Amino acid sequence: MKSEYDFSGAFLSDGVHEDCLKKDSRKIADAFSHVIDNMGKGWQEWCNLPYCSENELDEIIKYGKKVAEKTEYLVVFGIGGSALGTIAVANALNHLHHNELARDKRQKPKLYVEDNIDPERMASLFDVIDLETAHFNVITKSGSTSETLSQFMIVIKRLRDALGDDFKSHITVTTTIGKGSLYRAASEMGLKTFGIGEGVGGRFSVLSAVGLVPFAILGYDIKALLKGARTVTEASKNPSPNENPALKAAYLMTEYLKQGKNISVIMPYSDKLKYTADFYCQLWGESLGKALNWSGEKVNCGQTPVKALGVTDQHSQVQLYTEGPFDKIFTFIGVKNFDNDVGIPSCSALRDYDFLSGHTLGELLNCERKATQLAVSDSGKPSFTILLDKVDEENLGELLYFFMYETAFAGAFLGINTFDQPGVEFGKKATFAMLNRPGYEGILENLTKKH
Amino acid sequence: MKSEYDFSGAFLSDGVHEDCLKKDSRKIADAFSHVIDNMGKGWQEWCNLPYCSENELDEIIKYGKKVAEKTEYLVVFGIGGSALGTIAVANALNHLHHNELARDKRQKPKLYVEDNIDPERMASLFDVIDLETAHFNVITKSGSTSETLSQFMIVIKRLRDALGDDFKSHITVTTTIGKGSLYRAASEMGLKTFGIGEGVGGRFSVLSAVGLVPFAILGYDIKALLKGARTVTEASKNPSPNENPALKAAYLMTEYLKQGKNISVIMPYSDKLKYTADFYCQLWGESLGKALNWSGEKVNCGQTPVKALGVTDQHSQVQLYTEGPFDKIFTFIGVKNFDNDVGIPSCSALRDYDFLSGHTLGELLNCERKATQLAVSDSGKPSFTILLDKVDEENLGELLYFFMYETAFAGAFLGINTFDQPGVEFGKKATFAMLNRPGYEGILENLTKKH
Repeated sequence: MKSEYDFSGAFLSDGVHEDCLKKDSRKIADAFSHVIDNMGKGWQEWCNLPYCSENELDEIIKYGKKVAEKTEYLVVFGIGGSALGTIAVANALNHLHHNELARDKRQKPKLYVEDNIDPERMASLFDVIDLETAHFNVITKSGSTSETLSQFMIVIKRLRDALGDDFKSHITVTTTIGKGSLYRAASEMGLKTFGIGEGVGGRFSVLSAVGLVPFAILGYDIKALLKGARTVTEASKNPSPNENPALKAAYLMTEYLKQGKNISVIMPYSDKLKYTADFYCQLWGESLGKALNWSGEKVNCGQTPVKALGVTDQHSQVQLYTEGPFDKIFTFIGVKNFDNDVGIPSCSALRDYDFLSGHTLGELLNCERKATQLAVSDSGKPSFTILLDKVDEENLGELLYFFMYETAFAGAFLGINTFDQPGVEFGKKATFAMLNRPGYEGILENLTKKH
Repeated sequence: MKSEYDFSGAFLSDGVHEDCLKKDSRKIADAFSHVIDNMGKGWQEWCNLPYCSENELDEIIKYGKKVAEKTEYLVVFGIGGSALGTIAVANALNHLHHNELARDKRQKPKLYVEDNIDPERMASLFDVIDLETAHFNVITKSGSTSETLSQFMIVIKRLRDALGDDFKSHITVTTTIGKGSLYRAASEMGLKTFGIGEGVGGRFSVLSAVGLVPFAILGYDIKALLKGARTVTEASKNPSPNENPALKAAYLMTEYLKQGKNISVIMPYSDKLKYTADFYCQLWGESLGKALNWSGEKVNCGQTPVKALGVTDQHSQVQLYTEGPFDKIFTFIGVKNFDNDVGIPSCSALRDYDFLSGHTLGELLNCERKATQLAVSDSGKPSFTILLDKVDEENLGELLYFFMYETAFAGAFLGINTFDQPGVEFGKKATFAMLNRPGYEGILENLTKKH
């Protein structure tokens, strides 16, 4: 593993203590097998993605280069799993003011991941892009996500009006081949289309074409991303929790959940890793928040993920974290080495802060991370820390796949279906009814009456 | 009130029902008095801010205009309460791609609110700004926030190196007059300084100079912001919860907290209002997360705020919200009228989605908000909705002050000190010790030993 996984703050004398790993060895072995025996099968096709063939990757890289050459504005239309992986990786690998850089410093297209249908946001987008040099990657696995399709309908009309039949070369579609409205439309219009495997759920799809196509257009090293993901995949095949950090983390999180800690706080100390927290929150929330267990019993299970950013949220949330209720477990994420560290000079007018000078912002950031972890420990709350060597493709691939294995193991510990999301149907149907979609007449009354 | 406050989803037959308002009238009256009797006193000086004199406001407006004329890059150095109000308001009132707009479309400085010390972020900032046309507003109430002072030290050196003695005209300091290291340094260097009232805590300071100075530089209508805040202030003086939405909301939130709902989800359906959720999260987390009650008894109180964005997080968190545990209460925020709505055209290749065409994105967004509120209700969870007429200064002033009164009333219902934050001292001291600040030698060992 490239990263360090430090569990020293995770065991508590009055919580989960080190002996529990031994005591629960059978339970751990069962959860382990449940995930590992199903690798590559059913909804665990994502386990195979890091082993994608060089040929297939080279094709994507070639396509990405071709698009990048003629593109100044890359726009991704997608929501949830079709957006969060791309946002997490792009925010980590791009300059933090990427879109504001001049082309010669940026050396790749500007990026807009449009994962909402707010009209102000859509109007704002058209204020800053130029359709002639824009490229749209439209992503929905089912091919029937209303939000993404409405964006698609808006853009097709504008592209056609502006560019005529050439609009086609400005769109790449990523969807399930042979299924859904988007696939049919893309076929009819002759749009370039990439597929998503049937057994790759949206929130587990970052290393499918969903993420790889935009990453290739942005010139990231997608092979290094996969390499990092393979590292954690291999480590996850080790049945010993002490050699398998995703298994150990999942065990701890779910044991603490059973002890009433219904909140999982994830707190990266890095602006570049800020959106890996959002990626985690979708995985953790949508995978583990389930009404029924494997036996069909009502359990209304789930641990609510909360994202925080260090040090920023020390000045917003740490008061609650230290003095508030014992309802949380914390995942801290740190970075050892920064590409650009900044030294703090002395200032004679601020002589009582001279102790800061000679240090760097990176040192201050990491001292505050350690201090906050100590404060959380001191207040009796469990935590563990993931420490990345640096922020690059390989470390990121490892981090995102760590979260995915942690989630898969956690679902097995909880005995729920990690990979579905039946709870979002109500809202979809209610929306269709409000918009008078044929076939949904009167359904609103039925929906609210039957409960 | 400009906004609508809809509590129809907030009462549950097996939770807090409408009768409780009558039953608990004494408790409600006590909490009401605790806040209202102290308006303008002690730590409730923020109640006075919306009544600031026209003269004082005109001074700030004049200063803002003067700075704006020579400024292309406005940089705010501040963290927590010195940043979150500014971020919330600026994100709501600026174009959503403000910094990417050309000057003639933007017509005001670009904005950077630097509320973290990540070195990559500081290095990125210097890549996109030009010191000659940059202006720095350095904000810390205590004048001793390490993060802000370290940023200040870095910038002073760079400004001096680039501009010589003229560096002074590029800095505005906002801090407590007569107190702290920053005030002393600003006086020694002769920097323009605005004060913050002693009884205005950071998280309640958005309508003090903390927010008003950057808002004036950005050309917002600060008088309209104050007007909105006055509206909710006046409504908050009404002892009847049915005429006082902040009191009613606080009662509901704290009653549900006592019934085990330890999570408060806030979900604006508007990209422009996205960061009002962060503002709320600091208020709610830091004010109510307290170890001790008024009698000094250990209560480890607090309700954890969770921010979500509609519709985006429907594809990330709503599965958990509907099928997961009964541990949440929801605040939805909607917007009735958008300045820029976008119509959805039809697309022959997507004929099965023709039901979307003829609608606008704004309609789709609001249908999904209502559908999600219904889904949450249907799954047995309480919620209420704040519906803004539109996103402008007056509506924003009302929303932010609504949160502040809701928080103040909630603290009174819980019987805790809403306005302090003793739990962050440990982390500060531990950081100082790690950085070898004189006077903190050996303190780390003591800190961790004594507990």
